[in-house]
Amino acid sequence: MGKNKQFVEKVTAMEDDFAQWYTDVVKQAELVDYGTVRGTMIIKPYGFAIWENIRDELDRKFKETGHSNVYFPLFIPESMLQKEKDHIEGFAPEVAWVTHGGEEELAERICVRPTSEVLFGDYYAKNIHSYRDLPMLYNQWSNVVRWEKTTRPFLRTSEFLWQEGHTCHATMEDAQEETARMLGIYTDVCENYLAIPVISGRKTEKEKFAGADYTLTIESLMHDGKALQSGTSHYLGTGFAEAFDIRYLDKEGKQQPVHQTSWGLSTRIMGALIMVHGDNRGLVIPPRIAPTQAMIVPIAQHKEGVLDKAYDLRDQLKNIARVAIDASDKTPGWKFNESEMKGIPVRIEMGPKDIEKDQVVLVRRDTGEKEFVALHEVESRLSVLLEEIQQGLYDKALAHRTEKTSVATNMEEFKQTLEQTPGFIKAMWCGDTACEEKIKEETTATSRCIPFEQETVADTCVCCGKEAKELVYWAKAY
Amino acid sequence: MGKNKQFVEKVTAMEDDFAQWYTDVVKQAELVDYGTVRGTMIIKPYGFAIWENIRDELDRKFKETGHSNVYFPLFIPESMLQKEKDHIEGFAPEVAWVTHGGEEELAERICVRPTSEVLFGDYYAKNIHSYRDLPMLYNQWSNVVRWEKTTRPFLRTSEFLWQEGHTCHATMEDAQEETARMLGIYTDVCENYLAIPVISGRKTEKEKFAGADYTLTIESLMHDGKALQSGTSHYLGTGFAEAFDIRYLDKEGKQQPVHQTSWGLSTRIMGALIMVHGDNRGLVIPPRIAPTQAMIVPIAQHKEGVLDKAYDLRDQLKNIARVAIDASDKTPGWKFNESEMKGIPVRIEMGPKDIEKDQVVLVRRDTGEKEFVALHEVESRLSVLLEEIQQGLYDKALAHRTEKTSVATNMEEFKQTLEQTPGFIKAMWCGDTACEEKIKEETTATSRCIPFEQETVADTCVCCGKEAKELVYWAKAY
Repeated sequence: MGKNKQFVEKVTAMEDDFAQWYTDVVKQAELVDYGTVRGTMIIKPYGFAIWENIRDELDRKFKETGHSNVYFPLFIPESMLQKEKDHIEGFAPEVAWVTHGGEEELAERICVRPTSEVLFGDYYAKNIHSYRDLPMLYNQWSNVVRWEKTTRPFLRTSEFLWQEGHTCHATMEDAQEETARMLGIYTDVCENYLAIPVISGRKTEKEKFAGADYTLTIESLMHDGKALQSGTSHYLGTGFAEAFDIRYLDKEGKQQPVHQTSWGLSTRIMGALIMVHGDNRGLVIPPRIAPTQAMIVPIAQHKEGVLDKAYDLRDQLKNIARVAIDASDKTPGWKFNESEMKGIPVRIEMGPKDIEKDQVVLVRRDTGEKEFVALHEVESRLSVLLEEIQQGLYDKALAHRTEKTSVATNMEEFKQTLEQTPGFIKAMWCGDTACEEKIKEETTATSRCIPFEQETVADTCVCCGKEAKELVYWAKAY
Repeated sequence: MGKNKQFVEKVTAMEDDFAQWYTDVVKQAELVDYGTVRGTMIIKPYGFAIWENIRDELDRKFKETGHSNVYFPLFIPESMLQKEKDHIEGFAPEVAWVTHGGEEELAERICVRPTSEVLFGDYYAKNIHSYRDLPMLYNQWSNVVRWEKTTRPFLRTSEFLWQEGHTCHATMEDAQEETARMLGIYTDVCENYLAIPVISGRKTEKEKFAGADYTLTIESLMHDGKALQSGTSHYLGTGFAEAFDIRYLDKEGKQQPVHQTSWGLSTRIMGALIMVHGDNRGLVIPPRIAPTQAMIVPIAQHKEGVLDKAYDLRDQLKNIARVAIDASDKTPGWKFNESEMKGIPVRIEMGPKDIEKDQVVLVRRDTGEKEFVALHEVESRLSVLLEEIQQGLYDKALAHRTEKTSVATNMEEFKQTLEQTPGFIKAMWCGDTACEEKIKEETTATSRCIPFEQETVADTCVCCGKEAKELVYWAKAY
């Protein structure tokens, strides 16, 4: 047996070293490899298949809500990037610059897109004329580059894949509705497909997107108690419209600036998937997003009839689930390990004794529970089991989040809680950026969002003790 | 009515100025817009929807033949690009160079990928160990950059979208089979989906891919008699394997270099689609690839019941074709023009008189033929009609190509024919690159391919008169 590929190395226990556990899982489950240029990654077949499923689900929902896919260039001239002041300030430090084309030095530096608001802005200015052209609802799937200092696969990479939506509307109300609608789609995909519960809310002024009026966000909580921003939707107001002169003639014949939104979800979400559901045996992929939902492992496959029956079973199941069969010459034990490392939701064992009894064994990846199922019932049972696993993963993640969500009413409590129960801290805030900065300085926790579901857990700001304005979720974050 | 959007400008007649006709159609049919950075393009919703259909069809076929999608980085370090000598020589002159990340100057220049052989090579060297790892069949959908001097939308752009397949095999035979298999998939998609007949064959040494042992190609013929290379599949031999040290342990325990292939099809094919089927009223899109296969245009839609019936018709047809309805307040004439400009295969007219008679009018985009069809027969008729159009477009393109394919046996004939009947010239060749270069110099025609289907149209080379080795297709080309 080729030892390099078939030996499933153990992953570091997450209790011992969470960061190393993450790196081990990412490698062992064959999700990514490191690229040669600093901070880039190679997304391998299994990682890409998961991303394709997420992408296809989002894409379907974008199209259902009237959005068209487009493709805008990778390159932005430096002068164009500078048109919106806040935007360039936010992005300039992490931009990759092209200075030469072939042998020739360029007259103007070109930036590799870190995001495409300015390109869309320039286009909209030329292509929007009247209220009849609105809304204009575009999305693109693309790669973007942000020159990051410290990088980790999926979580922070110099180049990543994402979708970026860019829309123009006649009124503030329409644009704000769109901003909320797209956050709703992200919430739906995270919760109902990735089985990741999220807190929805608004970013503070300090944490909002560079150039936005406000930013909506969904925040999820990892196993180690750190938060991960999982998708953002920005109401851009008329800032880019003013900078790029994007105007339309309204029904009364008056020139008006458009109201814009932009929203994005990236391969970062793969990091959440790993860190919300994974365990010390590897990945755990929710059934709705799993490239393979059930892996058939034949037992004693050299015995006559076993492989034939296993292939029959695959054919029997192929219309109700994404089923694969591992008929390689590895031992069943190896196959179990590999299937577990990759987080395949269900393992189906079938050996000579099972065939004799007209049954199979179903083993859940998430709980390890085994059950014997009669062959004629396996279709209906597998369908139900996959849904049970999907729900089970969500419930478990939610319970974990609930357990790791605490309330703090003063800074001492805040610090103590953060140390004892790392996770979300719900605390009241006066609305002053100074308090936000002080909390970050003293605890390294940042404001994750001002949740839509507000509660009053105290009357005064957790930091300054002055009158509280609103509840904020705080956490250390990726 | 907003005049900017709804006025369908006339396109230049292709007989008067083919290049201008092309540019007009590309703009008027809303396929692309020009990007700000030289030679880049913005692919608009309609253009992207067509590309998505081509992409999805190819992607399905790649997966059916066992290929996995992956994603490799955009960036290649200069030193890595230089590892394969022929390859770097071919691509260096047209590469965009990144020299700065944020404020910092990079220690080594980074190139924006013009193609990814070296990235895959580097990866394969690390990830292939034994014969059990082979074949390794990867594909990626990505953007690539080639710093071109003169550019035209789709045909030659600084950045374009494509797929690039990269595979490793244990033996030359396996790799060569793969090279042919992928050319077969390109041929299938071109002929059976895009309705574009192609000549399949091998490129000459001069025209092959930089770094390949040989290149297979499919070549199509445009309306103006110029050829367009529509997809290429390269047998790389062991050149990259030697340069990158990609070896595997064979069954006998011996180290062997892998045999590789790469193959690509790009947004260039959109140019072929336009120039093979388009006419002076705009695009003509083959039904199998058309985002909208039939456009319902209600006549006198303000009259009671007309719009309701039109929507009923759409619902009736939506399971058998991609049908849309134009219920805007433009006049039917405008709608006809727009639907024609976009090349929608069938227009369905329905007015009060038709409703009275329980009928609709079907109008073919390609021939302009009209037919009255009873409402209860429209489903079956539309299905058949779409297939007739698909076949009709292919037949027409094939007839055009046949008409524009000539034989030449000496240089005088060659030049005369090229002037009188611009198109493919079939002529014998001695196999000497000097003759190929002389033909290019004297006529601007290049060797398009050495067709798999060989004929003997003469005994001597069309250029030097020495003994002929094989038949070659020559043409001026995009």
